[in-house]
Amino acid sequence: MTERRYDPTTGEWRTFATHRQGRTFLPATDDCPLCPTRPGGLQTEVPRAAYQIAVFDNRFPSLSAQPPEPTVAGTDLSPVEPARGATEVVLYSDRHDVTLADVGVDHIARLVDVWADRYAVLGARDEVAYVFIFENKGESVGVTLHHPHGQIYGYPDIPPRARQQLEAAQRHFDRNGTCVWCDVVGQERADGLRVVATNAHWLAFVPFAARFPYEVQLVALRHAPSLLDLSDPERHSLAELLHRVVRTYDALFGFSLPYVMSMHQAPTDDGPWLPVSHLHLELTPFHRTAERLKYLAGSELGAGAFINDTVPEQTAQALRLALERT
Amino acid sequence: MTERRYDPTTGEWRTFATHRQGRTFLPATDDCPLCPTRPGGLQTEVPRAAYQIAVFDNRFPSLSAQPPEPTVAGTDLSPVEPARGATEVVLYSDRHDVTLADVGVDHIARLVDVWADRYAVLGARDEVAYVFIFENKGESVGVTLHHPHGQIYGYPDIPPRARQQLEAAQRHFDRNGTCVWCDVVGQERADGLRVVATNAHWLAFVPFAARFPYEVQLVALRHAPSLLDLSDPERHSLAELLHRVVRTYDALFGFSLPYVMSMHQAPTDDGPWLPVSHLHLELTPFHRTAERLKYLAGSELGAGAFINDTVPEQTAQALRLALERT
Repeated sequence: MTERRYDPTTGEWRTFATHRQGRTFLPATDDCPLCPTRPGGLQTEVPRAAYQIAVFDNRFPSLSAQPPEPTVAGTDLSPVEPARGATEVVLYSDRHDVTLADVGVDHIARLVDVWADRYAVLGARDEVAYVFIFENKGESVGVTLHHPHGQIYGYPDIPPRARQQLEAAQRHFDRNGTCVWCDVVGQERADGLRVVATNAHWLAFVPFAARFPYEVQLVALRHAPSLLDLSDPERHSLAELLHRVVRTYDALFGFSLPYVMSMHQAPTDDGPWLPVSHLHLELTPFHRTAERLKYLAGSELGAGAFINDTVPEQTAQALRLALERT
Repeated sequence: MTERRYDPTTGEWRTFATHRQGRTFLPATDDCPLCPTRPGGLQTEVPRAAYQIAVFDNRFPSLSAQPPEPTVAGTDLSPVEPARGATEVVLYSDRHDVTLADVGVDHIARLVDVWADRYAVLGARDEVAYVFIFENKGESVGVTLHHPHGQIYGYPDIPPRARQQLEAAQRHFDRNGTCVWCDVVGQERADGLRVVATNAHWLAFVPFAARFPYEVQLVALRHAPSLLDLSDPERHSLAELLHRVVRTYDALFGFSLPYVMSMHQAPTDDGPWLPVSHLHLELTPFHRTAERLKYLAGSELGAGAFINDTVPEQTAQALRLALERT
């Protein structure tokens, strides 16, 4: 069963994909389905003996170009639709044990090119309205495969949190005539207290009202709605800063820090969103200390109200000090 | 440092409370600060040798009636305010090792009366706009104290997810002239496929578009905006159904199932919300099997789009079968 169902009590569409229960779960390194297919070895997802970066459709897709018909009939109150869209896997390297911190800036720059390419290709499809590039890294955020990889979802609508950001940016634009992200970048650069690192074209900072203790946002200095609007130097600059931030995380914690990376760009269907879409990445580790995690529980899940027990200015400073050691 | 900061990129207020880092973390049973103060024993939060149900201010409050002044100056773009509100702890029993499944229906009925009383008392305060009653149960949802307890937050605004539900209900009301929860209850009763249990005044069902595999909502059959609108039989009926559902969880999984319980009622400041506020409880366990959890990662955290790999009609059936064994 794969389908999308509408929740009339929140206005959200939810995706159901039951074959995902059978997906591969933390296989041994020798059985990794994302490693290259080595001569005489396991037939993996990648039929080559080596690769730099590889992209393919998720074998356990929640959204796809030709989804099955829904299993239930919807009603006016709670409609149902086929789970149209795309779900891709992006392998960062053919080396099983590396992370973005290990692969180096030039390799991440190639990854940025791949992301831009997939944003263009998926965004051009009829069934895709929003391309969402993300990475779930580490067991504490629930990854089922250790091999370094990210994912891309092509949603058939603008998903709830992206819509929330776009609507907030639209309200800001209507009031001030400016992009809220441009204004935030300006304020953070001027203030400096929450800046983790910066370079020619990008700024990395702990958000003023961070949801997670070590949350870091990477925001383009210039108003660029998507990766496609970036020049080559701007793409390389993103790679350089992302590399520096993930290395900083590892230096601060003393181990390869798990995180969720979420990238937000302009919706890909025609719409009024270009003036208020500003390319940005959100890195959200769950760790609040080396031993303890921040859990999303009653206040966050039930009320949507985040409680943070750290001071963004202090976590930014801790990250800056760790950065000096990298 | 305790304060609230506004995130202009989402329109959300976030609460910061750094002294919470020092809060008691999974103490040994003999050191439980929520047990009664026994003669010659530890001086706990409750200065009595026994109690039935106890309520007190959280020792590590994120929101309070007289919060300290903020540590940073806000700006027009990102304002700051004192963390006004209330945070209370509700002890369910003086027995350390019980859960709602153990205490029995009459005891839960007393708890419902306590909840109703606190809703009235906190809601009447100037600094409280929304009373949110919830329970984080079990280590897998991040509890730091095992003693059976819930919490109550009195937010100074309507928190994001409550607002989302109210606005969805308002849109439904404007279009159809009816309460969306009343309509959902009508549809679920007629369909029956997702019903877990029911009694004279309440319905428990797996939501048609559930976020979590074993999510169960308990909804009042009648349009009651809050606990204060319930008759005594209706309150007792809620207690009976809640007791049955948590026992069903434990029977299905074979252990005391961790969950987050969230209760939504009408906002407590004057407003247009009464016709669209319909008392309901959301039970969201994180387990998708006995061994595995559903993690909120990229799609949920970054995009706000829930992916569920179970079929609500099937989980409802599994729960009904487990219920027969209780």
